[in-house]
Amino acid sequence: MRIFHHPDQLRHAPLRELNNGEWTDYAETPARLTTILNALGEVEEARDFGLDPILAVHDQSYVAFLKSAHDDWLAAGRSGDAIGYTFPIVGRRKLSLARIDARIGAHAMDAATPIAAGTWAAAYGAAQAALSAFDAVARSEERFAFAACRPPGHHAGADYMGGYCYLNNAAIVARQAVSQGLSPVAVLDVDYHHGNGTQDIFYDDGDVLFASIHADPTTDFPFYWGHADECGSGGGEGATINVPLPRSTDWNGYRPVLENICARIAAWGAKFLVVSFGADTFAGDPISQFRLATADYRAMGAIIAKLGLPGVIVMEGGYAVGALGANVTTFLAGFSDQA
Amino acid sequence: MRIFHHPDQLRHAPLRELNNGEWTDYAETPARLTTILNALGEVEEARDFGLDPILAVHDQSYVAFLKSAHDDWLAAGRSGDAIGYTFPIVGRRKLSLARIDARIGAHAMDAATPIAAGTWAAAYGAAQAALSAFDAVARSEERFAFAACRPPGHHAGADYMGGYCYLNNAAIVARQAVSQGLSPVAVLDVDYHHGNGTQDIFYDDGDVLFASIHADPTTDFPFYWGHADECGSGGGEGATINVPLPRSTDWNGYRPVLENICARIAAWGAKFLVVSFGADTFAGDPISQFRLATADYRAMGAIIAKLGLPGVIVMEGGYAVGALGANVTTFLAGFSDQA
Ligand SMILES: [Zn+2]
Ligand SMILES: [Zn+2]
Repeated sequence: MRIFHHPDQLRHAPLRELNNGEWTDYAETPARLTTILNALGEVEEARDFGLDPILAVHDQSYVAFLKSAHDDWLAAGRSGDAIGYTFPIVGRRKLSLARIDARIGAHAMDAATPIAAGTWAAAYGAAQAALSAFDAVARSEERFAFAACRPPGHHAGADYMGGYCYLNNAAIVARQAVSQGLSPVAVLDVDYHHGNGTQDIFYDDGDVLFASIHADPTTDFPFYWGHADECGSGGGEGATINVPLPRSTDWNGYRPVLENICARIAAWGAKFLVVSFGADTFAGDPISQFRLATADYRAMGAIIAKLGLPGVIVMEGGYAVGALGANVTTFLAGFSDQA
Repeated sequence: MRIFHHPDQLRHAPLRELNNGEWTDYAETPARLTTILNALGEVEEARDFGLDPILAVHDQSYVAFLKSAHDDWLAAGRSGDAIGYTFPIVGRRKLSLARIDARIGAHAMDAATPIAAGTWAAAYGAAQAALSAFDAVARSEERFAFAACRPPGHHAGADYMGGYCYLNNAAIVARQAVSQGLSPVAVLDVDYHHGNGTQDIFYDDGDVLFASIHADPTTDFPFYWGHADECGSGGGEGATINVPLPRSTDWNGYRPVLENICARIAAWGAKFLVVSFGADTFAGDPISQFRLATADYRAMGAIIAKLGLPGVIVMEGGYAVGALGANVTTFLAGFSDQA
């Protein structure tokens, strides 16, 4: 399987996040990517497909904010990483706000996703890696390709960041696939956390099925999205599937749910598949509570590959850095077994 | 003028707030209240009017959250003050969430309003002080009474806290006034910051006019509310008045705006007035940027008193603790000059 990354992805390195009342070390480290790349062996550098595919998903004003936020933070006399503290939980609307704190809060769902000096470059690079993987598949060079994205993307909405995510790599690929006539497209999100950003982006969109298996949001981030009653709306009614699972779920609990959701993707008639793959379902993940073993990712990859669809795998979370290389290569091996 | 407070108001003492990227000392200190009480001389202890008047404004589930949040925080293995980090900026809806972090984020508009061990007792005490002041006026013992509220209230909505506020003392009094047949009621908010909570509570309500003069939210907290185009909706259309003023506004800039807004309150036919008085319009306020002098508060009090309405003054912000006693007594003296 061809594998894509962009060297700028390493330029994003926030120092800390607000979590459970305290600053803690930022879990989404550059080391995550180097570990994955080292384990994968031969990888390709992403081509640059420009801003247009990003702007097909994200608001222009949000992209402009992401680009300038760290400079605006420094210009306001601050040091370190930009982080919000006030959020429009009521009556959020498009406002032209001057102060950097106001703009961060309007474009963020948490106080745990800082903007550092290299954040924009890294997020842009990750999106280009995803687009390069899509391009390889669209040219029919391979049935599937892997984008070693980092920062991840699935918590980022059209106009907001959060959960370590800035640009929604999976959504950018899905939208490209639709625009190239490959709909209906399915996004299967198997990260430990609900992919709220992807869901929001396609909630009204009947061209893209969003299907997610994740930790129950009544106990786990992102809390406010991913409940079983969220099924899409308008033209997208029925095109959102959420299966929240309890903490401590292991492969025995996970596998039948995955097989069921794959059957629903097949029944939907998907012609193209985007997989948001997070390895934070791993038993040893420091911030997550499922109990998958490394070997389980081989079976997971095989079940998804059995759908027989062309598509792109984008990397989402996974914070057990020591096991991350093995977990990713095992997942891709399971995929290739079937492919 | 009779003055009310409750001794429990001192039990709320968070250590720190997240502001501009850093923890800073919590500005809304117990010392604010002791300074005011010392300057005022004779004050009365609040009577207890119970939960019903609070529940006439705030959701039962929000009140239950406020009561238990600090215990739930400790039960989750945390220490110190409870503070949120994830916020439902998109698609906020009533959800039954287990985790304390999820419940805080659902009920908070910022990561700068912690819940400490004594927060509920203090917020409840402040609301009772406001209700005691209302009771004194409703019995026609005095035309006006002052509630030395602390924590303040005007940033708190029906189901959310923020900006140092938990229970909306001004809204609780206004709703009581309506329920006792005193409508139309006007709430005049002269704190430096927009009273977003009060606005939200009465936005659709034609019985209560909300009129506010405040720092432009494009530059100042709470950012997402208080813009001039917010005028109420439904039955409350036209019953919300926002006049944002630029930083550096002094009394020469402030006075004509206040006179105009008082004329609009009179034209509205208000029968009862609630004043949200914040002394953070003071030139020396450490977190605010207007330039009123202590003597200006005498003129401010006189202009408002000239409306000739009965009512209650509730204390909101004001963080120049050394000048706070003088600023409050001067405002009340201006009021009494006219009364
Ligand atoms: Zn995750
Ligand atoms: Zn204020």
